[in-house]
Amino acid sequence: MSELVAPHGGGELKPLHHPDFERAEEAKRAESLKKVQMTSKETSDLLMFAMGAYTPLDGFMGREDWHGVCAGMKMKDGLFWPIPITLSADKDLADSIGEEEEVALVDEETGTVMAIMEVLEKYELGEDGKTFECQHVYRTSDTNHPGVQKVMDQRPVNLAGRVSVVNEGEYPEKYKGLYLRPTETRALFAEKGWSTVAAFQTRNPMHRSHEHLAKIAIEVCDGVFIHQVLGKLKPGDIPAETRTVAIQAMIDNYFVPGTVIQAGYPIEMRYAGPREALIHALIRQNYGCSHLIVGRDHAGVGDYYGAFDSQHIFDTLWDGALETKALKIDITFFCKKCYGMATAKTCPHDKEDRVMISGTKQREMLAAGEDIPSEFSRPEVVKILQEFYRNQ
Amino acid sequence: MSELVAPHGGGELKPLHHPDFERAEEAKRAESLKKVQMTSKETSDLLMFAMGAYTPLDGFMGREDWHGVCAGMKMKDGLFWPIPITLSADKDLADSIGEEEEVALVDEETGTVMAIMEVLEKYELGEDGKTFECQHVYRTSDTNHPGVQKVMDQRPVNLAGRVSVVNEGEYPEKYKGLYLRPTETRALFAEKGWSTVAAFQTRNPMHRSHEHLAKIAIEVCDGVFIHQVLGKLKPGDIPAETRTVAIQAMIDNYFVPGTVIQAGYPIEMRYAGPREALIHALIRQNYGCSHLIVGRDHAGVGDYYGAFDSQHIFDTLWDGALETKALKIDITFFCKKCYGMATAKTCPHDKEDRVMISGTKQREMLAAGEDIPSEFSRPEVVKILQEFYRNQ
Repeated sequence: MSELVAPHGGGELKPLHHPDFERAEEAKRAESLKKVQMTSKETSDLLMFAMGAYTPLDGFMGREDWHGVCAGMKMKDGLFWPIPITLSADKDLADSIGEEEEVALVDEETGTVMAIMEVLEKYELGEDGKTFECQHVYRTSDTNHPGVQKVMDQRPVNLAGRVSVVNEGEYPEKYKGLYLRPTETRALFAEKGWSTVAAFQTRNPMHRSHEHLAKIAIEVCDGVFIHQVLGKLKPGDIPAETRTVAIQAMIDNYFVPGTVIQAGYPIEMRYAGPREALIHALIRQNYGCSHLIVGRDHAGVGDYYGAFDSQHIFDTLWDGALETKALKIDITFFCKKCYGMATAKTCPHDKEDRVMISGTKQREMLAAGEDIPSEFSRPEVVKILQEFYRNQ
Repeated sequence: MSELVAPHGGGELKPLHHPDFERAEEAKRAESLKKVQMTSKETSDLLMFAMGAYTPLDGFMGREDWHGVCAGMKMKDGLFWPIPITLSADKDLADSIGEEEEVALVDEETGTVMAIMEVLEKYELGEDGKTFECQHVYRTSDTNHPGVQKVMDQRPVNLAGRVSVVNEGEYPEKYKGLYLRPTETRALFAEKGWSTVAAFQTRNPMHRSHEHLAKIAIEVCDGVFIHQVLGKLKPGDIPAETRTVAIQAMIDNYFVPGTVIQAGYPIEMRYAGPREALIHALIRQNYGCSHLIVGRDHAGVGDYYGAFDSQHIFDTLWDGALETKALKIDITFFCKKCYGMATAKTCPHDKEDRVMISGTKQREMLAAGEDIPSEFSRPEVVKILQEFYRNQ
């Protein structure tokens, strides 16, 4: 039987956390160390390290890796990596930290001490460095771009070094059963006898257009892994609790049992479009997925990226950069003339024949308790979303 | 840009026909040679040689190749080949042919001299040899199986040797524009910028279930090659002329322009199930197709093969045996609960929810001028088939 795709870099998964039995002790020790505050994005990256989703990284990146990743998506050792993973600190604090000194990493929102980091390098990016990062990673330095804004807002000094997580915060408990780590998904896939698995990234409830994407994937892979963003959302997004239930209603009523697994992970969207599509694929490789569904404007925002930039970038990688492949699919919809679901690649009819409802319009209709056409959304899903809006 | 898949064996295409300007002269010369009559299956194989569809073979197989192909799908030089391609003759005639003597190959149905063959080997299969072939290739020696019947009916002595075709019969003229040779399809695919092409084998008009198969393929390949059997059909089959028009009506109304090419080829069905699925893929590799759509019971007949035997056999081949991959898809249908097209892999609902009409029932309905539900067939296609039956 075929095997699952190997973790990124070809070695074992590298979850960067202390074993359970040492965590309490290490967390206590961390209290005595200098404290570096993490933004929600940095905390999210730390949780990704903890679960091995950023295998084979050892921690936050040093300058040379940062530069290589920004400029050419390559670490100094040649490893493919599309987006820099860095941690920033205030100058005074950074200056006070000695060589190889251990510091405690603290989630600034909750005040929780989450990890110990051995600081191996300190470097300033400056305005020029941040602009360089944005130009390469986001293809723009326009601060109206939410990902760019976060980079420009970073503290002045980047701290690099190995991390060891002592506390994964509220996620594992809050999203019990949904918060699956790469070791766990790989075991699940193997148990089902899957070797090819397509990941579907979502931060929204699923309507028929998303169901269609997932069902195309099921035709060419053993199963689909519906993988939700549990990190910070944009205002107006449906919260994970409701989204999960709505997605489960679709799975239970419209998918063959055993062909779909739903899970979530703690990433925070950067909206970096093509570069983010690549890191989404890399992360899914660690989870054991052979494919990532990449639709129109995957991980984009506003008009910063062309509709197919996130698909095309996969064709520009060097051999062996990334094992997980893009399953490229165009925009999906119900077409009345096709009398069924279709994509722009299979439907020759006009826009007027297609049932498409914008996100804003959907929210309005649901909030007003209106029904949404069954060509657009499953009634079981609509009911859950209507109820959510009724309780707002 | 990516390239089309290489012809089988990795070399150039090998069309086994005389250049046009020499054909008349060679055909005249053939008249003076001993004549070997070919059955319609043998004639069909000869036409496949002529167009290079059986690349890299040089002609009908000798005993060692025949044996290796039957037993292990391997020619004596190690080349993958799943079904023996042989020519048989009466004993008296065979005995009269000298070593390396040239003979004329004649289509027994039309009396046309079609090729010159240099006879390099003569060998008898006997009852045992034929049974051995059937057991391995057809997995049965039951003469109720139409493919087995043809093998058992072969004349006693197989003649092997290089062929050179001087006349391709009526096909090229009769199916002008449809009768495309591998060199021609490769040029067409390249012109469209396709590198991945899925072949869809059919000997019937296409209903929505077939459209769905083709549209799944379009999602994962650059285009679809609808490739019809122009060789002998089973009684009751719709003739190629009508079928072509019906398929074109579907393409014109329900596919995005430039995503589909319709063509036909002169193969005669053996109904060998899994082994035939493999030769269908091998042939499509020569045509430049990276994939062959393999549905339920592909190329099967009766209950001789399991529903998925023709899909599974692709997983048993050695590395490098065959470049063209199976695009494995389960049975397809419109499901009322899914409210759209689905496959047994994507639809969890009951049989009663599925719109499926047997071939016999379809013929009855069409012959009676009845409409067929638009969940099952496109009205543009139904109209053409109704008209055909009206004129019977």
